[in-house]
Amino acid sequence: MAPPEDIVANPPPEVEETASAGAPISTVLIVIAMHTEAAPLVSKFELVEDSDKSMFPKGVPWVRYCGKYKDLYINLIWPGKDPAHGVDSVGTVSASLVTYASIQAFKPDLVINAGTAGGFKAKGASVGEVYLTSAVAFHDRRIPIPVFDLYGIGAKETFSCPKLLEKLNLKVGKLSTGDSLDMSPHDESAILANDATLKDMEGAAVAYVADLLSVPAIFVKAVTDIIDGEKPTAEEFLQNLVIVTAALDQAVTQAVDFISGKCIEDL
Amino acid sequence: MAPPEDIVANPPPEVEETASAGAPISTVLIVIAMHTEAAPLVSKFELVEDSDKSMFPKGVPWVRYCGKYKDLYINLIWPGKDPAHGVDSVGTVSASLVTYASIQAFKPDLVINAGTAGGFKAKGASVGEVYLTSAVAFHDRRIPIPVFDLYGIGAKETFSCPKLLEKLNLKVGKLSTGDSLDMSPHDESAILANDATLKDMEGAAVAYVADLLSVPAIFVKAVTDIIDGEKPTAEEFLQNLVIVTAALDQAVTQAVDFISGKCIEDL
Repeated sequence: MAPPEDIVANPPPEVEETASAGAPISTVLIVIAMHTEAAPLVSKFELVEDSDKSMFPKGVPWVRYCGKYKDLYINLIWPGKDPAHGVDSVGTVSASLVTYASIQAFKPDLVINAGTAGGFKAKGASVGEVYLTSAVAFHDRRIPIPVFDLYGIGAKETFSCPKLLEKLNLKVGKLSTGDSLDMSPHDESAILANDATLKDMEGAAVAYVADLLSVPAIFVKAVTDIIDGEKPTAEEFLQNLVIVTAALDQAVTQAVDFISGKCIEDL
Repeated sequence: MAPPEDIVANPPPEVEETASAGAPISTVLIVIAMHTEAAPLVSKFELVEDSDKSMFPKGVPWVRYCGKYKDLYINLIWPGKDPAHGVDSVGTVSASLVTYASIQAFKPDLVINAGTAGGFKAKGASVGEVYLTSAVAFHDRRIPIPVFDLYGIGAKETFSCPKLLEKLNLKVGKLSTGDSLDMSPHDESAILANDATLKDMEGAAVAYVADLLSVPAIFVKAVTDIIDGEKPTAEEFLQNLVIVTAALDQAVTQAVDFISGKCIEDL
């Protein structure tokens, strides 16, 4: 499918054209790990798959959907299907690589990492709820050497956007990231220490890269499964993935609608 | 410290100049996670820290040491000190990012990931031994959904270099990678399932990126600590780091000496 002419004629602005302080947000990068999570937003924002594969190096499975929506150039990046196994390239390595390469290529003013997550009912989470995360950390990078331990956890507050939060009426919680869908006892201790309401497989990696490259990033996460509940995570996750994705996509659409025409300082 | 003039005058060749089939290897990328491991090789190969910081984006802590050694352009990349915590940026996220960015920037014919590792005495490993790995896999990416499970483990054989192996007389073993220095019971089960002799924190991530970008990669790992031994890993690791690094650097130097003037097919 070829991109419509107006998209070809309006490539994302180069670095010198991105929003400076006080200027409205121009370019948004949305990073989404799974195709099931991404597809409704591609449709909603009328994005098209980029036919110019030169934006990323040959061999990577990453897929860029792009287009103009209201005042915004939107780049939605899905890490694509793993070349060896044919499943979504989930997890921190792929997420960090696509975030890095996409920030380099598209110079976004804002990164939005959207996705599903496990939630802790002990922290008030329920299936189908959507959160804006206040902080991220890793729970599977244990390095028991002074200072290296803190580096491994990598806890950081995320970009503060009180007006966006108020407008969307989302819940707020901390997010803990690890490369496993299940939760070992070691992971559980670390997640508790991270004071997390949510558990995902990409957020802290996206935050790390966005922070390195000084791009503000927000994290919109919808709860597919209750980790401290009765049902096995993998089963509950697959059962709820499609329906919860609808709630996620609604929240992301509302966020993008709110962002359009605003400056970073007004979020 | 400014780079000597001959290095400035001889930047690494662009992609069209890299070794094609049958041509000698021209450019080598050495990825090393810790400064302690990197420093002796920087000195041995008479590399200089690149003063042109435009090769990597502003904000990243990555450090490039470069120079010509025999017939080879050598780029030794160290992920640098974490900006927030000031310790070496170890682990899979940093390793994958620097490998990606460095392959893009320097178009190497060969990647060498050199570093220290834990070893299993049950598999015949002893402190101070140096291995060339035959295969890599992850042990902390458990995704109990069919096919996703295999993606998470990400097992793959590494580039075969029988002549190099014979010349250097190194031991051969499989490497398992995870983001923790310690080993949880879940990690241990996965490492056993991976049939690993060695455990590190970067190898499989470097292999993943090199494979995506179709660059052959070899993994030279020296044993700093015995995982199934008596001593706590962190203590044994720190105690042996400097002395084992000498063995590692000797092996990498021998490998580079052997590679110089040869084609990829002759390794």
